[in-house]
Amino acid sequence: MNKLPDINQQFAEWYQEIIYQAELADQSPVRGSYVIRPYGWSIWEHIKGVLDHKIKATGHENASFPLLIPLSFLQKEAEHIEGFAPEVAVVTHAGGKELEEPLVIRPTSETIIHYMFAQWIKSYRDLPVKINQWANVVRWEMRTRPFLRTTEFHWQEGHTVHETFQEAKEEAELMLSEYVDLCRNYLAIPAIAGFKSAAERFPGADETMTFEGLMQDGKALQMGTSHLLSQSFAKSFNIQFQDREGKLAYPYLTSWGTTTRLVGAVVMVHGDQKGLVLPPKIAPIQMVIVPIFKTPEDRDKILNLAHEIKNRLKDSIRIHIDAREEINPGNKYYHWEMKGVPLRLEIGPRDLAQNQVVLADRIGMGKKIVALDALDQAIVSTLDIIQQEMLTRATARRDALWFKEAKLATLGPKLDTNNGLYQTGWCQLMECEQELKQYKATTRCLLPDQKTFETCFNCDLQSICDVLVAKAY
Amino acid sequence: MNKLPDINQQFAEWYQEIIYQAELADQSPVRGSYVIRPYGWSIWEHIKGVLDHKIKATGHENASFPLLIPLSFLQKEAEHIEGFAPEVAVVTHAGGKELEEPLVIRPTSETIIHYMFAQWIKSYRDLPVKINQWANVVRWEMRTRPFLRTTEFHWQEGHTVHETFQEAKEEAELMLSEYVDLCRNYLAIPAIAGFKSAAERFPGADETMTFEGLMQDGKALQMGTSHLLSQSFAKSFNIQFQDREGKLAYPYLTSWGTTTRLVGAVVMVHGDQKGLVLPPKIAPIQMVIVPIFKTPEDRDKILNLAHEIKNRLKDSIRIHIDAREEINPGNKYYHWEMKGVPLRLEIGPRDLAQNQVVLADRIGMGKKIVALDALDQAIVSTLDIIQQEMLTRATARRDALWFKEAKLATLGPKLDTNNGLYQTGWCQLMECEQELKQYKATTRCLLPDQKTFETCFNCDLQSICDVLVAKAY
Repeated sequence: MNKLPDINQQFAEWYQEIIYQAELADQSPVRGSYVIRPYGWSIWEHIKGVLDHKIKATGHENASFPLLIPLSFLQKEAEHIEGFAPEVAVVTHAGGKELEEPLVIRPTSETIIHYMFAQWIKSYRDLPVKINQWANVVRWEMRTRPFLRTTEFHWQEGHTVHETFQEAKEEAELMLSEYVDLCRNYLAIPAIAGFKSAAERFPGADETMTFEGLMQDGKALQMGTSHLLSQSFAKSFNIQFQDREGKLAYPYLTSWGTTTRLVGAVVMVHGDQKGLVLPPKIAPIQMVIVPIFKTPEDRDKILNLAHEIKNRLKDSIRIHIDAREEINPGNKYYHWEMKGVPLRLEIGPRDLAQNQVVLADRIGMGKKIVALDALDQAIVSTLDIIQQEMLTRATARRDALWFKEAKLATLGPKLDTNNGLYQTGWCQLMECEQELKQYKATTRCLLPDQKTFETCFNCDLQSICDVLVAKAY
Repeated sequence: MNKLPDINQQFAEWYQEIIYQAELADQSPVRGSYVIRPYGWSIWEHIKGVLDHKIKATGHENASFPLLIPLSFLQKEAEHIEGFAPEVAVVTHAGGKELEEPLVIRPTSETIIHYMFAQWIKSYRDLPVKINQWANVVRWEMRTRPFLRTTEFHWQEGHTVHETFQEAKEEAELMLSEYVDLCRNYLAIPAIAGFKSAAERFPGADETMTFEGLMQDGKALQMGTSHLLSQSFAKSFNIQFQDREGKLAYPYLTSWGTTTRLVGAVVMVHGDQKGLVLPPKIAPIQMVIVPIFKTPEDRDKILNLAHEIKNRLKDSIRIHIDAREEINPGNKYYHWEMKGVPLRLEIGPRDLAQNQVVLADRIGMGKKIVALDALDQAIVSTLDIIQQEMLTRATARRDALWFKEAKLATLGPKLDTNNGLYQTGWCQLMECEQELKQYKATTRCLLPDQKTFETCFNCDLQSICDVLVAKAY
């Protein structure tokens, strides 16, 4: 294992290197597609487990729609095709023949799902329809980075249909709040919820809500989105229902999704110079036991104790015993620190003699000697404290990089040298937004409930609400 | 809802119709791709949950490999490309440009996974590698049928690497036995395990093991396979490791998979004239409660009781309360019979007055009146009995259609009029196997432990072991 690049000086290199060294992902022979290795995939499976539970608990059902979509479907909604056309991968041949109509690999599934909705929905009695799918999608990106931007990625996409605008709005807001809860209480990331500007909206949406995370290098990451779709989707796909008055009406649609990108966010928000730091709730291994011994008798006694502890706790805690004999304890510590395991339990002969063990946490709160008869409780509570403390620290780091600036003249140069979130006022005209380009920044999200500034950061018009500006992934 | 076609006279039409009426799947606008609707997908999720647990419990880890594979990768293993070339879907354009090398959508992932294995495996210390992925694959089939044969399907594919032939063989056998256990103890299907003939093997395998189910129309269904791959894969992708003697060696590989086809098998093995019949262990809804009332007071009391029962049992049993008021109880019965819900609980005003309810099972064992204070236990045990009874009945049906015939002269005409499994002797020459074509039959699996017949069904050569012959999906 090599030392990681300096996290403060070379964040991008640090990120790239940690992905490989912690065995989260690997390059594949297909440009921009990555192999997600078991350790990385296990993190995603834990995130997926939490989110799938939330999706079902809020009344949605999973289903599966085709990977391949007729090109003509994408073309039905004007903004949608304009947004996605440059990115699609196209199947022109199959079964040894040229296809009559090319098929695209779904970049997102609105079009084909709406087509099916039109077959299924006839009356207000069929509403709401609340569907989710876990799927892979392909967008041919020019510059890729593991987890953050890849040509193929894994995600969930929720698609719902409602009688009224109000109900659709509540749905989109509800799912946004579930995402924010997922980030906060499982990923230990204090995500910021808000609205996208018109320029940053999903192609074909009336309103896009987003949740944004702040990475340790001061850049923002859009972690997922929730859309109130324009009725033009319902019209393009002719989704109509008989309403309560017996008249034909177009329903209101939402869609919302988040991706394997969340794994990248966890890496970039919590990682340190030694490697990954994983929140206990989504860590594939929550505690590693490192036995320390020199004689065969010690070995047997200590491994027995290790297995006893593991068996006793295996239903509530994910434990791995590192019993390798060709590697010394110090190197095992490095290895599991790189992998971000939140808690390490060390058992040596002297500990054994004194009926105690040592607990070392990954976030540097300090080693603790724990008596064996108090161990189970200590493990559970330490994991809990680590989870809480990680959120506290991530929040402190975010807040330390959250600035307020009234005008681009000061905001711009400051942002040039000091990445972070810049809260400012904005008239919501696109001309002003475009001025941010010179600083490689974009509007990340509107904060409709906040109005700290009277005028726009760029012009003298009134600010409609505050906006967060940042460089972003 | 319309009446289903006669299951005995028109099995194929019955199958097609039940898929739509029970809302398991729907046709999509893409030829041969189906939408799997929430009810069908939920069955798959339950199957997947059981199998994923088995896969992890036997020491495998999930990972994710790219959807798209360079065409040249498929071409590296001669038999493999010959087997799959006619079926692949090819991406020729992406990101608005023609690709330098076409990419195929994976029809299976041996090639790209073996390519990655070659990067990861250096020494015997890196072995075994035991990986699984849950994925979608595409094979451009000419004739498709929902779940059974579709251009896109969902599956898991396990891929493992071992030091020795013996270890690889044990792995392939172990996973076959896990599949058989899944069928038997969860799907209530008495699958038959055996070996494929050389002609029916996976392209590039030395040995393919299969588990076959017998459908109610007497046709066999290959439910999944487990392969001992030829070393030519390791050689084509240059997977080499330093063995315990320090020499470079080629490892032994396996792959094994099963698909959404299992959902189709459950439909065809257990369904009846009224609709689906789902084994409790994988049923999305294990018990439906149908409240029966005329007055608002009865309504409130009965619904209260229904919710009490559901809340009490919700952690152990999947219960749905059908509280719709626009539909009468009789129609609700039809509805849930079509959906194959194993158990129905009816509560009417008279039951309520007598502190009892009625339990009706989907497999016709007879309605039972159950006192409220014995209800929880009765529900649990009745679901258990239904699960067991479904396996017993499926086994009896299979055995009733399992014939032994020594010679094609009698076997052939009998099979022509009477579908089923025909056990016979075989010399294992392909010429004899091909004679089965005239009866639209194939060898389904060799039964190496059985030798009922001295000579081949077609020639006078000695039979090597018994073989099962059948028409198949």
